Amino acid sequence: MKRFNEKQILGLITSKLGNTGLEPLFGKDDISVISLEKIIKKPNKNCYLSATCDMLVEHTDVPPRMTFKQIARKSLVSCLSDLGAKGIRPKVALVSLGIPLSLSKGDVRGLINGFTLTSREFGFFIIGGDINQSKELVIDCCMLGFSNNNLNIPRRNGAIVGDYVIVSGPFGYSSAGLKILLNDSKTPNNLFKKKSIESILNPLPQIKFGLKLSKYLSSSIDSSDGLAASLYELAKESKVNMLIHRDKIPIPPELNKFSILNNLGLDDLIFYGGEEYHIIGTIPKKNIIKVNYLVKKYCLDFFIIGRVVSGIGKVFVTYPNEQKRLLKNKGFTHLT
Amino acid sequence: MKRFNEKQILGLITSKLGNTGLEPLFGKDDISVISLEKIIKKPNKNCYLSATCDMLVEHTDVPPRMTFKQIARKSLVSCLSDLGAKGIRPKVALVSLGIPLSLSKGDVRGLINGFTLTSREFGFFIIGGDINQSKELVIDCCMLGFSNNNLNIPRRNGAIVGDYVIVSGPFGYSSAGLKILLNDSKTPNNLFKKKSIESILNPLPQIKFGLKLSKYLSSSIDSSDGLAASLYELAKESKVNMLIHRDKIPIPPELNKFSILNNLGLDDLIFYGGEEYHIIGTIPKKNIIKVNYLVKKYCLDFFIIGRVVSGIGKVFVTYPNEQKRLLKNKGFTHLT
Repeated sequence: MKRFNEKQILGLITSKLGNTGLEPLFGKDDISVISLEKIIKKPNKNCYLSATCDMLVEHTDVPPRMTFKQIARKSLVSCLSDLGAKGIRPKVALVSLGIPLSLSKGDVRGLINGFTLTSREFGFFIIGGDINQSKELVIDCCMLGFSNNNLNIPRRNGAIVGDYVIVSGPFGYSSAGLKILLNDSKTPNNLFKKKSIESILNPLPQIKFGLKLSKYLSSSIDSSDGLAASLYELAKESKVNMLIHRDKIPIPPELNKFSILNNLGLDDLIFYGGEEYHIIGTIPKKNIIKVNYLVKKYCLDFFIIGRVVSGIGKVFVTYPNEQKRLLKNKGFTHLT
Repeated sequence: MKRFNEKQILGLITSKLGNTGLEPLFGKDDISVISLEKIIKKPNKNCYLSATCDMLVEHTDVPPRMTFKQIARKSLVSCLSDLGAKGIRPKVALVSLGIPLSLSKGDVRGLINGFTLTSREFGFFIIGGDINQSKELVIDCCMLGFSNNNLNIPRRNGAIVGDYVIVSGPFGYSSAGLKILLNDSKTPNNLFKKKSIESILNPLPQIKFGLKLSKYLSSSIDSSDGLAASLYELAKESKVNMLIHRDKIPIPPELNKFSILNNLGLDDLIFYGGEEYHIIGTIPKKNIIKVNYLVKKYCLDFFIIGRVVSGIGKVFVTYPNEQKRLLKNKGFTHLT
C-alpha cells in the first residue's frame, strides 16, 4: 500500500484548497490571515483574523514523564508559538479532546487544570470545544488572534538578500531534554539536566519577542520542526540562500560536554532538535538599531546567526577556520 | 479507576473556563459567539464571530461502508449543522487531521476530495489545518461564521411558555440507516433502505432552514444527539417543560414496518436516534404566520410537534387516546 508523507498530503491539500482568494498575503504559512472586510459584506475595514490550529497526538507528541497538566499546556503552546512568531496576540481558542477510556478522573482534572493555567498565563480565552472518546489522547487546539492590519505580519517568504538571520534563544536544550527523557542520557550537571527537561515538559512560546519585534522582521517562523528545517523553510519560500555562522548560534554552555558524554553529534543536537518554540526570522539591516533598542528595553534574547544571500533556497553553515558546508535539510523526528 | 463521562467533563470545563466575559449571551451552547468589539481594542461595532468545533473519531463516528470522501464530509457536517441551527452562515474552517499509517494514498485523496466538495457545496473556505500521525483516523474541524449582530441568534435557553416546538424534518431514517449498516437489518422496501443509508453516509445539515428561519425561533439546537436529548436540552436550559404530540412528529411512512420487521421499538427509532442533523427549536406564536410564509417561499420542511408549557425541564409525550408519558432522557449512543 502506497502512503503519503506529511509534506505530500500538505501539497495535495494546498493544490486542492489553497487559493481561497481570502488570503492575499498568506498561502502556505503557519497561520492564516483573512480580512474580515472580505468576509462580512458590510465595510469593516482594518479588521483581520489570524487563525492557526495544532493537533497533539499522544503516541507521537507526549514524551515520558509529561504530566496531564503539561500535556494540556503543550497542546496550546504549539498554537501560541505559531501566532507569537507572527506577532499576533492570541485571543481565543477552541479545544477538541479525544479522550481514551484509560484516563482517570484525576488525569482529566490535570488536563483541564493545564488548559486553565495556560490560558491565564498567556491571557487568552478558551471559548469552545468538543469532547470525544478515542483510542489515544488527542487534543486539537484552534487559536485565533485579531489585528487592525496585516502589513506588519512577517511571512515565510519575505527574506531579502542582505537581511540578517536571527533567533530568539538557544538551541540544544530541547533535543538534549528529549534524549534525557527517552534514553536517560548522561548529563554534565544537574542545572543542564533540569533546564533541558524543563524545555520539553514546559515549553515557553516566544510571545513577548513576537509582539515586540515581529513587525521589524522581513520573515519569520517558529522553530517547532527544528532549526535546520525552519531555516530551509524561510530560504525556500523566500527564494534566497542563507549563510549561517555556526559559532554565532546560541547554545547551552554544557551542550558540547553532553554530546561527548552520550556520543551524539553536537550539530545534530543544535540543528535537528525540534519543539524549541523559538522564533527564527530575518531582519533588514535598517531595522537593527531600532530592534537593538527594543531588545534592551524589553529584556529579550536576540541573536544574529547569519545573513541572507542570493540563491534558490539552500542553507550553508560556516565553521571557524573551515569552508562553508551545505546544511542537511531534515526535520525533527517525532517520538515514533 | 474512576472515570468521568462526557457530561461530567463538560461540567468541569465549564466551571473552570466557562465565564470568559466574552460571551454575554452564550454559556453552554453549540456555538460560541463573541463580540469583536470586545476583542479588538478599537471600536468595531456590529461584528460578531461565531465559532464551533467538532472532532470525528474513527472508531466511534465512522459506520461501516462509509467512504473516505463521506468521512471527510461528515466531519464538516457536524460543524455546519451547529452553525446552521443558529442561523450563522459558515464562512471559514480549519481542519486538523490525525492520519493512521494504515491509510493509503487513495484513502487520503478520498478525504481531501471530500473536504473540497463539501466546502464547495456549502460555500465556505478551508483556510488552515494541521497534519499528524495517529493510531486511528481523527478529523477535527473548527468552523467560523460572522454576523453583524448577535440579537437574532437563537440560544438553547430562549424557549418561553406558549411557544410551539418545531423540527425541520423527519426522524427515524438515521437510526434505521445505522442499524442497516451495522446489523444488516431487514427493510420494508428499497427506497426506504436507500434513504436510511443515505441519511447516515451523506447527512444534510439544515443550513437553508437555519439561515431563513432561525431569527424567528426563540430557541434552537441541532439534533445530532437525538430528538429526545435535544428536546431535553432546550427544556432544561430554558427552564420549561415540553409537551410533544407523538403523532405530529414527522416520520418515514415505512418506519413502523421496519420496527416490526426487526423487532425494534418505534419510539426508540424516533426519539433515540442521532446525527439526523435536523434543527429542533421553539417559535413564539406571533411568528407563525411569517414563518409559514417563508417556509412556502423557500420550499422548506417545517413541522410543529408540540408546545412549551411551564415546568422545570421535563419532556412529556402524548399519544392518541392515551395520557401523557414522561419521555426518557437518553442520548444517541455512539458506535462503541
